[in-house]
Amino acid sequence: MESEEQIEASAQLCAETGVRVLRAGCYKPRSSPYTFQGLGLNGLLLLDKMRQRFGLRIITEIRDSSHAEEVIEYADIIQVGAKAMYDQSVLRRCGKSNKPVLLKRGFGSTLQEFVQAAEFVLSGGNSQVMLCERGIRTFETKTRFTLDLCGAVWLKKHTNLPVIIDPSHAIGFAYGVADLSRASLALGVDGLLIETHPNPPAALSDAEQQLNFDEFRELKNSLSTLATALGRKLI
Amino acid sequence: MESEEQIEASAQLCAETGVRVLRAGCYKPRSSPYTFQGLGLNGLLLLDKMRQRFGLRIITEIRDSSHAEEVIEYADIIQVGAKAMYDQSVLRRCGKSNKPVLLKRGFGSTLQEFVQAAEFVLSGGNSQVMLCERGIRTFETKTRFTLDLCGAVWLKKHTNLPVIIDPSHAIGFAYGVADLSRASLALGVDGLLIETHPNPPAALSDAEQQLNFDEFRELKNSLSTLATALGRKLI
Amino acid sequence: MESEEQIEASAQLCAETGVRVLRAGCYKPRSSPYTFQGLGLNGLLLLDKMRQRFGLRIITEIRDSSHAEEVIEYADIIQVGAKAMYDQSVLRRCGKSNKPVLLKRGFGSTLQEFVQAAEFVLSGGNSQVMLCERGIRTFETKTRFTLDLCGAVWLKKHTNLPVIIDPSHAIGFAYGVADLSRASLALGVDGLLIETHPNPPAALSDAEQQLNFDEFRELKNSLSTLATALGRKLI
Amino acid sequence: MESEEQIEASAQLCAETGVRVLRAGCYKPRSSPYTFQGLGLNGLLLLDKMRQRFGLRIITEIRDSSHAEEVIEYADIIQVGAKAMYDQSVLRRCGKSNKPVLLKRGFGSTLQEFVQAAEFVLSGGNSQVMLCERGIRTFETKTRFTLDLCGAVWLKKHTNLPVIIDPSHAIGFAYGVADLSRASLALGVDGLLIETHPNPPAALSDAEQQLNFDEFRELKNSLSTLATALGRKLI
Repeated sequence: MESEEQIEASAQLCAETGVRVLRAGCYKPRSSPYTFQGLGLNGLLLLDKMRQRFGLRIITEIRDSSHAEEVIEYADIIQVGAKAMYDQSVLRRCGKSNKPVLLKRGFGSTLQEFVQAAEFVLSGGNSQVMLCERGIRTFETKTRFTLDLCGAVWLKKHTNLPVIIDPSHAIGFAYGVADLSRASLALGVDGLLIETHPNPPAALSDAEQQLNFDEFRELKNSLSTLATALGRKLI
Repeated sequence: MESEEQIEASAQLCAETGVRVLRAGCYKPRSSPYTFQGLGLNGLLLLDKMRQRFGLRIITEIRDSSHAEEVIEYADIIQVGAKAMYDQSVLRRCGKSNKPVLLKRGFGSTLQEFVQAAEFVLSGGNSQVMLCERGIRTFETKTRFTLDLCGAVWLKKHTNLPVIIDPSHAIGFAYGVADLSRASLALGVDGLLIETHPNPPAALSDAEQQLNFDEFRELKNSLSTLATALGRKLI
Repeated sequence: MESEEQIEASAQLCAETGVRVLRAGCYKPRSSPYTFQGLGLNGLLLLDKMRQRFGLRIITEIRDSSHAEEVIEYADIIQVGAKAMYDQSVLRRCGKSNKPVLLKRGFGSTLQEFVQAAEFVLSGGNSQVMLCERGIRTFETKTRFTLDLCGAVWLKKHTNLPVIIDPSHAIGFAYGVADLSRASLALGVDGLLIETHPNPPAALSDAEQQLNFDEFRELKNSLSTLATALGRKLI
Repeated sequence: MESEEQIEASAQLCAETGVRVLRAGCYKPRSSPYTFQGLGLNGLLLLDKMRQRFGLRIITEIRDSSHAEEVIEYADIIQVGAKAMYDQSVLRRCGKSNKPVLLKRGFGSTLQEFVQAAEFVLSGGNSQVMLCERGIRTFETKTRFTLDLCGAVWLKKHTNLPVIIDPSHAIGFAYGVADLSRASLALGVDGLLIETHPNPPAALSDAEQQLNFDEFRELKNSLSTLATALGRKLI
């Protein structure tokens, strides 16, 4: 999230296309200390406004424990970022919440460590954990990360938790997001995280991987058609 | 390929389910010198028999240049194995053939090296090259390899060559092959290599990743349905 | 650290062999919620006792921000663990301390991200940052991680910060620690983190990579000899 | 090898500094079909000339089986290139030779596959196999490859074969070759492959990783000093 104007446009797009959950990050502790770091608490308040105005559920991210309390308070679904997957004070705190937790796999994390991180939340008493595969780091550099759909299949087979795919962060380029989204749906996953921005070239972070709104609408339609063919229904 | 009986059963399954190309390896120079090494020329002769009897096209693999000539003579489609992707005497020889070449990506090879290997064939005068993604080697060990569908999308965008997916070698376990096949089809790829065996537990190589014939029939049907929904047709 | 008895024996070994800094972890939030989690604040108090009794400097680790304050208070050198390398609330807090910081590279982290993490500490005003290479995650599984000495050379060339090597965590087996320690010294690094335990088979964590005290003494001697030959001096 | 002039200068440097084995590649089937491909048989004849004139032993490389016979005839030590490590017709051919074989590890190959490749040569009757670690492919891109010294230690412990290190190809930059060479010697390896060129910026391949002759002389001296300190002797 960058500004009220931008998040409002995105919330409107969700409402219009039947998307029911809006994801936006308020704390973006970036790799470099010199880039955009997010709107913080003001962002959370804006998300609250969007929730009330558009009837959307809000998913927003914890990156480290310094802002865990406020994110847990304002989110409908708590996202634990890939870089926080090993942060056990965050995981334990989520385990004591009664809100669903979307846990992202660290890009250098094995499937076993990923499942163990989920166990930290589950063993705290919170059984609503979703596992999100978002690409792992490999020797291939033409794409940002390598989406591990073999891993997603393994998770479906070896756990009972919902599996979510984030194709946008995985490939890192808008051109592949639609194909990877359809592939993930056909694979049988339970949800998708897709990045969209009213004006991708102007995005303050991850600009190359944002769909514009027309691309998003088109993708949403094709996913609905595909879901029907697969005997499923997008909700 | 292990025996006449086994390959005949497999050829019959292809004919019965409308599969038009039969793949079987005759030279299997395995990692260890102590395991099954393939039927060699006798295998090629058996494949020839299957071609005539069932009207199938045959795809079989070159692993190194010692058997390149005979494979090129007997195959309808020449497969260049992942471990031969850098073998330029093989690539150059394929470039002088007028048969289609299915080039497998080395599991430690970048997309750029993969495309350069294709260029060796293309620059020899053979324009019929198909690129086959079959999984790359990463830190994740719960699956045999990591299927790089981000890479497949990149290949579709940056080359004009057909892209084929081999889900069986990628995940290395039968349980995931159907899901990954449907995902690959939804991604928009041009073909699939799927391993099947009349009695998987008795297979002499890669036993864990073989579908039995019932699983294969079921997968073929679901792929046909999915293709129709995507406005495509399996051929 | 596991008990007063064990840490006292280790502190004594340091004093006896001329090692001046004792490292011990008090917070060990392990991958699994079911394994030993460390002694916590009691551990820090024990380390304080060892400092006073043996005149050693103490290095101990922050794993997440829940225990950052107490570690910063009790440590002479603050270690930021590999899994906390992206935790910017921890990094910023270290940036405001006046104690030296030993920053471990995440096992899935690029050299660029590693240097950027150091910049978070440096840009907070703390210029005493040491960079610790401790192995990265690769496809090779015979050793626990792959020690990246090419990366260590790159760090020496491209930064002015001291470079420290942790061979114990990298290889994960005691048999290789001495060879890798000597290699690191010959490479020209500024320090070594070496794990030792009075009775390795009984260690509560990382048992396989602990040197026993005799092995440690022998290694210390051979490093002293090697340092002299290289025109350096162990301090 | 690029020209008679260049190889003669290099051979002279070897003779002058007490290096006893000259390595030069005559077949360089590069990743791209459009770059320098080596001198071929003419190169082998030039190497023969250097052998006689300077009393050096010659090590030169097989990249694929098309030139295996002539390399085996002219070499004193046969190098099997990293990209040919899985080529079993080459390995079997080497197994029938009575000349020592330097086998390079594939950059995507596990230690287990590496040892199995050596077994192909050994089981053919040739017991003179040396294992050369030359860097593996990882997510780190600041250096060309990641030199796996943990792997070298594992090989020393788990095989009885000599272990050789190629720091030049591993890091891919001249600046790190001396440090990595000293580290390898201190690790206890049995040999080093070091690239040198009379005029590195003009080198037709791998220009960035070549030492010039002054750098090579200086390194050779420092290795001699270090070897003495370690109770060894360079031969």
